[in-house]
Amino acid sequence: MKTEGLLAQRMLKVKSSAIRELLKHSKMENVISLAGGIPSDALFDFEGLSIATQQAITEQAKSAFQYGLTEGSYLLRERICALCSERGVIAKPEDVLVTAGSQQALDLVMRAVVNPGDVFVVERPTYLAALQTLELAEANVMSVSSDSDGMVVDELAELLKTQKIKGVYVVPNFGNPTGLTLSTARREQLVKLAAEHNFLIMEDDPYGELRFTEERNATLYQVSQQILGHTDNVIYTSTFSKILAPGLRLGWAILPPFLLHKIAIIKQAADLHASSLSQSIAECYLGLNRLPAQIEKIRAAYKQKCDILAGLVEKELGDVISFDMPKGGMFLWARFRQPFNATEWLKTTLNEGVVFVPGEYFFSDKPDHSTFRLSFATATEQQMQEAVARLRRAL
Amino acid sequence: MKTEGLLAQRMLKVKSSAIRELLKHSKMENVISLAGGIPSDALFDFEGLSIATQQAITEQAKSAFQYGLTEGSYLLRERICALCSERGVIAKPEDVLVTAGSQQALDLVMRAVVNPGDVFVVERPTYLAALQTLELAEANVMSVSSDSDGMVVDELAELLKTQKIKGVYVVPNFGNPTGLTLSTARREQLVKLAAEHNFLIMEDDPYGELRFTEERNATLYQVSQQILGHTDNVIYTSTFSKILAPGLRLGWAILPPFLLHKIAIIKQAADLHASSLSQSIAECYLGLNRLPAQIEKIRAAYKQKCDILAGLVEKELGDVISFDMPKGGMFLWARFRQPFNATEWLKTTLNEGVVFVPGEYFFSDKPDHSTFRLSFATATEQQMQEAVARLRRAL
Repeated sequence: MKTEGLLAQRMLKVKSSAIRELLKHSKMENVISLAGGIPSDALFDFEGLSIATQQAITEQAKSAFQYGLTEGSYLLRERICALCSERGVIAKPEDVLVTAGSQQALDLVMRAVVNPGDVFVVERPTYLAALQTLELAEANVMSVSSDSDGMVVDELAELLKTQKIKGVYVVPNFGNPTGLTLSTARREQLVKLAAEHNFLIMEDDPYGELRFTEERNATLYQVSQQILGHTDNVIYTSTFSKILAPGLRLGWAILPPFLLHKIAIIKQAADLHASSLSQSIAECYLGLNRLPAQIEKIRAAYKQKCDILAGLVEKELGDVISFDMPKGGMFLWARFRQPFNATEWLKTTLNEGVVFVPGEYFFSDKPDHSTFRLSFATATEQQMQEAVARLRRAL
Repeated sequence: MKTEGLLAQRMLKVKSSAIRELLKHSKMENVISLAGGIPSDALFDFEGLSIATQQAITEQAKSAFQYGLTEGSYLLRERICALCSERGVIAKPEDVLVTAGSQQALDLVMRAVVNPGDVFVVERPTYLAALQTLELAEANVMSVSSDSDGMVVDELAELLKTQKIKGVYVVPNFGNPTGLTLSTARREQLVKLAAEHNFLIMEDDPYGELRFTEERNATLYQVSQQILGHTDNVIYTSTFSKILAPGLRLGWAILPPFLLHKIAIIKQAADLHASSLSQSIAECYLGLNRLPAQIEKIRAAYKQKCDILAGLVEKELGDVISFDMPKGGMFLWARFRQPFNATEWLKTTLNEGVVFVPGEYFFSDKPDHSTFRLSFATATEQQMQEAVARLRRAL
C-alpha cells in the first residue's frame, strides 16, 4: 500500500511489545499463565466498586458523564493527596495531574522533557512499557545495572562524569520485573545526584502499597524533601490499577509546577482529560474508606501467593534456578544458575502448557538471557503447583 | 527553578488553549456562556446510561474493571461497525481502534505520521485542539480558506503544485467552529487529490449525526470507497461524546491496517487502552438500542436551539452581524459586517455578562478578527434571549 510510506521516521523502528504477542498464548486452553502483570480480579472489591459506581451515577451523574477539567476533579485530587500523605508524599491538589493510569504519566512526561537524542537512564532490567515511551520520544536510553539493593547508583554517578543526562526512570519499590527494592542509602544518593547534576527522577510507584512486611521505604519524593528541602527534580507517579481496578484507567502524577502546566497542555491535546466516570467512582470509593482494608487484603493474598510460588520454585527447580525473595509486588525474578536461554526454553514450556516472560525483553541493552519473570498475582495455588511441575518437566 | 531548563524544545512554544483560559470566565456568577463546545447534559439519557452501567458492573464486572485489549473490546468494535455502517462507513472490527475520545485519535495519528516539519493542511478556521496535536507533532501547519461549501479544495490543489503534503485535517460535517459542511463535489475532489498525491485525509466526524435536515452527506471514507475502490488514504474518526456522554472519554478511529498496527503500539505506550468500564457501558448501551431515539432527541433539540439563537441574532444584531445558517452541529459562526475586533469586544461583553469565543483562536494563520463562535448547545431559550440582549448592549 502506497500510503505506508507516510509513516513518521520514528515509527519505523518501533516494535510491538513482545509480551503482548506472548500473552496471546496465555489465552490458549490448558496453558497456565505466570506471564501477565495483571492483578487478580478474584481480589477486586466488587462490592465497594458497585457502591461507588451507584453513588457516582446517582449523586454525581451530571459531572460523571460530562466533560471535566484536564487536571482532574479537584475533590479526587484532594483525596489522592490524602492517600499520598500516608506514603510520605506531601503535595497539594494543585500539584496533582490525574492521568489515564500511570502509563500515561510516563508518556506525557517523556513528551514534555525529551528532545530526540536526550539521555534517559533506566535500570537493567526495567519496565518494558517505560522503554516504549522513551523509544517514542526518541530518547537515547542508557542503562545501569541493578542488584539486590536495586539500581546501582554508583554506576549512574560514574556515567554522570562524562554524560549529561535528562532523567532517570526508576521503580523503587518491588519493581517490575525484578520485585526488588532500592535501598535507603541509594535513594539518598540518587536524589542528591539529581539535584547536583540537574536531571529529573521519574519515580514510578505502582507497587509500593503491596508490601509483604511492615517496613515502608521513604519515597524518593519524600527523601528529596527531607534532605534537599524541595522536590523540584522528582516526579512521583502512581496508580489505582494495582490497588483498586485497572479497568478504570486511573493514575496520577505529582509534578513540579513548571512541568504540570506544560503537561496539562499535552494532556489536553492527548485526550482532554481522564474518564469523568472513572474519576467519580474513584472519588466515591475513597470516600467509602474501604481502601485501607482492601490494600491489606491484597497484601496478605499476594504475600501468600508469593510464598507458595517461591516455595515451589525453590523445592522443584532450586537446583537449576535462583531468585531473590521479593518483599512486595507481583513478580518473582528468576535466573538459571548456568547459562541458559529462557526465550528458547519458553517454546518447550509452552508445549508443556506454561507461559512466563523471558527476561531479555526487560533489558534496554545487554540482555541477560538466563533470566525470566514469573507473576504470582493471578494463578491459584493449584495452578502454581501444576505450572511448576510442568516447568520441571520442560527442563 | 533550575529544572525548568529541562523542558523539551517543542514545549517552549506550546501554549495553553486560549479557550480554556476563557472558559474560566464562563464559571463566573451571572455570566451566560455561549462559549463552551460541550453538549447539553439536560439531553443526556441518564436512564439509559444508568441501565447500561448496571449491566456493565453486574454482567461484565470482571472485564469492566480489569485490563483489556489495546485495540478495544471486540464486541464494542463490532457495535461501532454497525453504527458506522449507518453512516456509510463499512469497516470490520479489525479496522477499528477504540480511543479516549476522538481527541486521542487525532493525537495518535499525528504522532504516527508527522515528522517535524511535515506539512499538514487545515481549514481556516479549524478545530483548535487539532491544531494543538499538530503543534505537538511539530508539523508545518498550512491552511486553505473555507466558504459556505466548506474547505476550498481548489486552494489545496493549487498548493499541491508546489508543496508535498503529509495530510489534510477536515471536519466535513457541521464543523467546529463554522458549523459548515463540505459539499459533495469538494468531497470527491479531495479524495481524488489524496490518492493522486498520496497524502492522508484525517476525517473528523464528531457532529455528523447532529443533522437538522434529512440530508446525509457521504463521508469521505465512503466517497473514497465509491470512487477509488479503497480507503487507503482516509482515517475516519468519531466519538460517543456528542451523542452519548463525553465523560466516558470514548471515541474510535477507522484506520488502514498498516497504520492501525503502528498506532496500537503508540496507544499501548500512551495509556494501554481506553477505560474498560466506559467500553462496557457503551457496549451495553448500544445493546439497549436506545441510541437511535437518543440521537433523534438531540437533533431535534439542537435544531430548535439553533433556530432560536439564529432568530435572536438575526433580529437583534442582524444589522451589524451576519452568519451562515448551520445545517447541524452545535455552533453558529458569526461575523461583523464591518471590520471589528471580536477579542476586544469580549472584554465589553464580559462586563455585560456574556462570554463567547473570539474567532481568531481557530485560525492557524491569517486570523479574521471580526469573527466569533456562539454555541447554542447548552444555553436555555431564556438564557439565549438575555445573552443576545446583553450582546446588543455591549455594541
